[in-house]
Amino acid sequence: MSDKILFQCDYNEGAHPKVLERLVQTNMEQTPGYSEDKYCEEAREKIRKACGDDSLAVHFLVGGTQTNVTVINAALRKHQGVLCAVTGHINVHETGAVEACGHKVLGLPSPDGKITAAQVAEAYEAHIQNDSFEHMVQPKMIYISNPTEVGTIYSKAELTALSETCHKYGLYLFLDGARLGYGLAAPDNDLTLPDIAALCDVFYIGGTKVGALFGEAVVIKNPELAQDFRYLIKQNGGMLAKGRLLGLQFDALFTDGLYQEISAHAIAMAEKLREAFTAKGYTYLAPNRTNQIFVIVPDAHLAKISEQFGYSYDQRIDATHSCVRFCTGWATREENVDALIRCVEKL
Amino acid sequence: MSDKILFQCDYNEGAHPKVLERLVQTNMEQTPGYSEDKYCEEAREKIRKACGDDSLAVHFLVGGTQTNVTVINAALRKHQGVLCAVTGHINVHETGAVEACGHKVLGLPSPDGKITAAQVAEAYEAHIQNDSFEHMVQPKMIYISNPTEVGTIYSKAELTALSETCHKYGLYLFLDGARLGYGLAAPDNDLTLPDIAALCDVFYIGGTKVGALFGEAVVIKNPELAQDFRYLIKQNGGMLAKGRLLGLQFDALFTDGLYQEISAHAIAMAEKLREAFTAKGYTYLAPNRTNQIFVIVPDAHLAKISEQFGYSYDQRIDATHSCVRFCTGWATREENVDALIRCVEKL
Amino acid sequence: MSDKILFQCDYNEGAHPKVLERLVQTNMEQTPGYSEDKYCEEAREKIRKACGDDSLAVHFLVGGTQTNVTVINAALRKHQGVLCAVTGHINVHETGAVEACGHKVLGLPSPDGKITAAQVAEAYEAHIQNDSFEHMVQPKMIYISNPTEVGTIYSKAELTALSETCHKYGLYLFLDGARLGYGLAAPDNDLTLPDIAALCDVFYIGGTKVGALFGEAVVIKNPELAQDFRYLIKQNGGMLAKGRLLGLQFDALFTDGLYQEISAHAIAMAEKLREAFTAKGYTYLAPNRTNQIFVIVPDAHLAKISEQFGYSYDQRIDATHSCVRFCTGWATREENVDALIRCVEKL
Amino acid sequence: MSDKILFQCDYNEGAHPKVLERLVQTNMEQTPGYSEDKYCEEAREKIRKACGDDSLAVHFLVGGTQTNVTVINAALRKHQGVLCAVTGHINVHETGAVEACGHKVLGLPSPDGKITAAQVAEAYEAHIQNDSFEHMVQPKMIYISNPTEVGTIYSKAELTALSETCHKYGLYLFLDGARLGYGLAAPDNDLTLPDIAALCDVFYIGGTKVGALFGEAVVIKNPELAQDFRYLIKQNGGMLAKGRLLGLQFDALFTDGLYQEISAHAIAMAEKLREAFTAKGYTYLAPNRTNQIFVIVPDAHLAKISEQFGYSYDQRIDATHSCVRFCTGWATREENVDALIRCVEKL
Repeated sequence: MSDKILFQCDYNEGAHPKVLERLVQTNMEQTPGYSEDKYCEEAREKIRKACGDDSLAVHFLVGGTQTNVTVINAALRKHQGVLCAVTGHINVHETGAVEACGHKVLGLPSPDGKITAAQVAEAYEAHIQNDSFEHMVQPKMIYISNPTEVGTIYSKAELTALSETCHKYGLYLFLDGARLGYGLAAPDNDLTLPDIAALCDVFYIGGTKVGALFGEAVVIKNPELAQDFRYLIKQNGGMLAKGRLLGLQFDALFTDGLYQEISAHAIAMAEKLREAFTAKGYTYLAPNRTNQIFVIVPDAHLAKISEQFGYSYDQRIDATHSCVRFCTGWATREENVDALIRCVEKL
Repeated sequence: MSDKILFQCDYNEGAHPKVLERLVQTNMEQTPGYSEDKYCEEAREKIRKACGDDSLAVHFLVGGTQTNVTVINAALRKHQGVLCAVTGHINVHETGAVEACGHKVLGLPSPDGKITAAQVAEAYEAHIQNDSFEHMVQPKMIYISNPTEVGTIYSKAELTALSETCHKYGLYLFLDGARLGYGLAAPDNDLTLPDIAALCDVFYIGGTKVGALFGEAVVIKNPELAQDFRYLIKQNGGMLAKGRLLGLQFDALFTDGLYQEISAHAIAMAEKLREAFTAKGYTYLAPNRTNQIFVIVPDAHLAKISEQFGYSYDQRIDATHSCVRFCTGWATREENVDALIRCVEKL
Repeated sequence: MSDKILFQCDYNEGAHPKVLERLVQTNMEQTPGYSEDKYCEEAREKIRKACGDDSLAVHFLVGGTQTNVTVINAALRKHQGVLCAVTGHINVHETGAVEACGHKVLGLPSPDGKITAAQVAEAYEAHIQNDSFEHMVQPKMIYISNPTEVGTIYSKAELTALSETCHKYGLYLFLDGARLGYGLAAPDNDLTLPDIAALCDVFYIGGTKVGALFGEAVVIKNPELAQDFRYLIKQNGGMLAKGRLLGLQFDALFTDGLYQEISAHAIAMAEKLREAFTAKGYTYLAPNRTNQIFVIVPDAHLAKISEQFGYSYDQRIDATHSCVRFCTGWATREENVDALIRCVEKL
Repeated sequence: MSDKILFQCDYNEGAHPKVLERLVQTNMEQTPGYSEDKYCEEAREKIRKACGDDSLAVHFLVGGTQTNVTVINAALRKHQGVLCAVTGHINVHETGAVEACGHKVLGLPSPDGKITAAQVAEAYEAHIQNDSFEHMVQPKMIYISNPTEVGTIYSKAELTALSETCHKYGLYLFLDGARLGYGLAAPDNDLTLPDIAALCDVFYIGGTKVGALFGEAVVIKNPELAQDFRYLIKQNGGMLAKGRLLGLQFDALFTDGLYQEISAHAIAMAEKLREAFTAKGYTYLAPNRTNQIFVIVPDAHLAKISEQFGYSYDQRIDATHSCVRFCTGWATREENVDALIRCVEKL
């Protein structure tokens, strides 16, 4: 337990009480292992329903890196790679897990964490028109995150354009939704779960950062990727012995709109913080309305804020300013947000 | 929830109540992620103490396959492989996870799930004396499990001989302790945690099957393997965001002898079952006194047992007999054992 | 240059003079690189013709390990493995190259280097019927060599049965023909190149051991394996800059029946040697009529033979006998065979 | 045989006549395989002498991609990556071979194909100072090519600075010398083979592009990389059965200064071409004095040049200009250079 109030990430606490309660209630029940129990099946059913498509394959994994690697391994042949923003999680923050499985991550420049259909088209055309194309990694999958690493989100038009470009070129579209709830709850979002399920070949709904102790729900629309997926889960270390723990948690999150409700809370807290920061005259690195606030703050202010509050250091902006990240989450208490606001207002 | 009483494995239930209680008590506390919190540190300290060596590195991972792959990846160069019993978990039941990371598993014949120092010496000598040795995978690590896949255990003399042989040849000795508690609690066991920590380069203490919701504690004695180990945890998908969940569980298991106590319970239940089976005239595939009973049963009996009880089917023995596995565990209720015994006695 | 006469392998000399002549004649010509020159195209055309199928894809690689790995990488998804005889080259003598690329080699017992359709069917059925099949590597490709590592060959009936079994189960059949010429030229062979091309998904025609300086010609019938194959050649280090060197050599070998002619010479030499060994009362490990003779010889005899002749030591048979290998090849001179025979006769 | 005169690369012809002659002379000799023959040993000795260090390990491989992958595999643990210019061959033109073996290539910006000691220091410091360093690939090796992909070369001061930085941080320095001869022969070069051998942990001397049919000589100074290197050669498909072919070629190249002599010829031809281009008013992408000329030419001129001469298209510069590459080599005939110059002069 920290003696500061932590805003540095969205995984500082355990699970939403309703999620934890399900684990406690069912603790001594006996079920088969490896996610072949009835709780997993019920959770899969609820997720399919929320996505508006009965034909979707749904699998539960433990964490994000594992999920990304498993999906990419299911999709690519040896000579194929995955296009993503240079800032993409798989390109920067997974200790080369994708490369460790044999695949090159092909970074595309991105000021805001997003990539565009035009960039994908250009990269693919450049590949196939190159005289030495067989000497280069073949792009086959597009990895995006929504929200991105810097908190921005894709519009329905942008995701539709990406999807159409992927279809045109025979590329798979994979959306990393580690913070998907917080994207869907953003005031400026126009995407729905059924939209995402219809536009992507595969995506995942993050639990770890949105109310669960841990867990990610992979949703697969493209049957090529779904085939033999459980073999790949096992090979990549994601086949949880007590798989029901994942089913129970997602069942709770997808009961009575809990996932949406707790995501909305996080966004309300972020909006409140952002309003105070803006009022103070602070500016933002990649403006967004999700739960991650990358805000540029005078170093002198940070020194004072640090006395009571935790945040993530992002980067130096100039001699006297830094960009730092404040995160809210399902667990953020309004009194803590208010305390931070009071602290900032006094600076 | 099954309508039968399940004996098919040791991960049919959740966690021991004292373990779950710790998760509930601390649920809304804020801590840093990735096992850099105080609970993990406390658990590491208790494990070092239980192993009698302050210098050990201790890391927490989520599951067994992930742990095996991470340890092996930390140890081997590209041309090196791992020797183990042909029945070893890494050779049979991890969907080729070790090979997927580039390393050959070199199987040694084993009637009882164990391998001997003599086998290791013979395999290593055969390698270095072969004219084409550079055309073959170089043995560099020995993987054993204790108890093994078939429930047998190593004696102190056997493990000491393996350790000495490994030192002689510059091989790493790795012990997979997914069910370590049940091995240490076996009536015929003469090994202690400090013995294992002294004799192995690396081993792990299984939590998933011994009282935790999930989790394995890797204990590293050899500094070559310890170097940069957290990079490898992350790359292999084992860096749990809310790492404290692992620390809290192992802290509970290593408080007031809980790990030993619940392991002893499982063994008492297994001994009771075994006594009834023996009285009935059943024989065993690989006799042992740990928590896995591989018993040979007439198919007609199995048909009746199946009506009320779950077990794992292992293999056909002859036209009218099969070998099946009954497992006990920390969660096994004596009334269920008694019900199974009554059922068998009536057959 | 050795001062002994070497029979230890079929790659002790350079290339057949007609092959070398082509390299010399064309040495200063300018051609495009990477096997996109006219000589490669002509050689491809001749190989397609020799195989009786205009639709085959033909690619040239440098050596056998590289070829095996490239073909296997083209075929398998991450969770899939390759079934072969435990004695298979990929399982024993390629320093784990297949595993280094992520795939488990699943060894089947084999007294004579061959595997049968029945073994394949049994292994596949055992996999799909296993309760834990997703925890195990999925067999997807069958690797055989013809001749095998111990010189034996498949009959047309045996290869047809393997092919039918593979089709039945959706498995790929891959034939390693490092010594294919010597198999086709064996007196007891009933397979033709068109048979092999019709029955296998992919195979290769060995050049290194049959008249070329180096080089293997991969022949692909199954379009799934042919797709993007050149990417995989490049990734696996087999895209020779001066690719024409491969085309020129195979063009020479497939002109005027040279490949058949020089293979037949090697077999004639082996038959002559075998006759002398048999007359002497020696016996054989895996009787065959190809160019590798695994013969069991008294150690006292070996000591004398060693004074003038090179051979490969294979294994100890008993206290006074060893199995050794004598190889003939396209370059074997009859006077050397005669010298060895005289030496043996005098023992 | 092309009907144009080809300047597009330095591997359009076969081998230097003196190299070929050695292969012809020795063709029917019998030698042991796998580079364990006397010719390889002699070539190793000559290379050690040319490098001024008797303790160097020297190994022969077939081609560049294979060599790069083998060296990198020998050096890195799983979580480690290799820093290089974004334009580096391993980052762009090897179909992800390094990633296929599990390692991330970490690209550094480079306008001229080179990277500096300062860039390496900055990248390494940024890594170790990052809070999430264990979530990122650890830089462990520096890959440079000399000449680079765009023909530029390192000065002795630059290479010394890189070497010192690598020592400071415990990084391996690897120099890809696919065109090393042409770099050493450049008028503005101040590096020698002994300098390179002293400053790098490992480098290779290219044969494929400098007089051999094929082949690269890896020179290893750091014993950590040398250990078990032949296992890695075999695993990566580079263990040529008739290894003497490599030894014979390098023996010829390192006899009587042939390597230096033919490299100097290529440079003389390039200088002559460059002079004509400059006189014509053409400019250069990355000015250099090695054998690759990246020259910016009006598209109208290119149309005419194309009628008689081959070159490589590099990139579009503006609406009416392109950058193309003309290469000279050991085999370039002065009459062809003169023909090209006459053609250009008339434009």
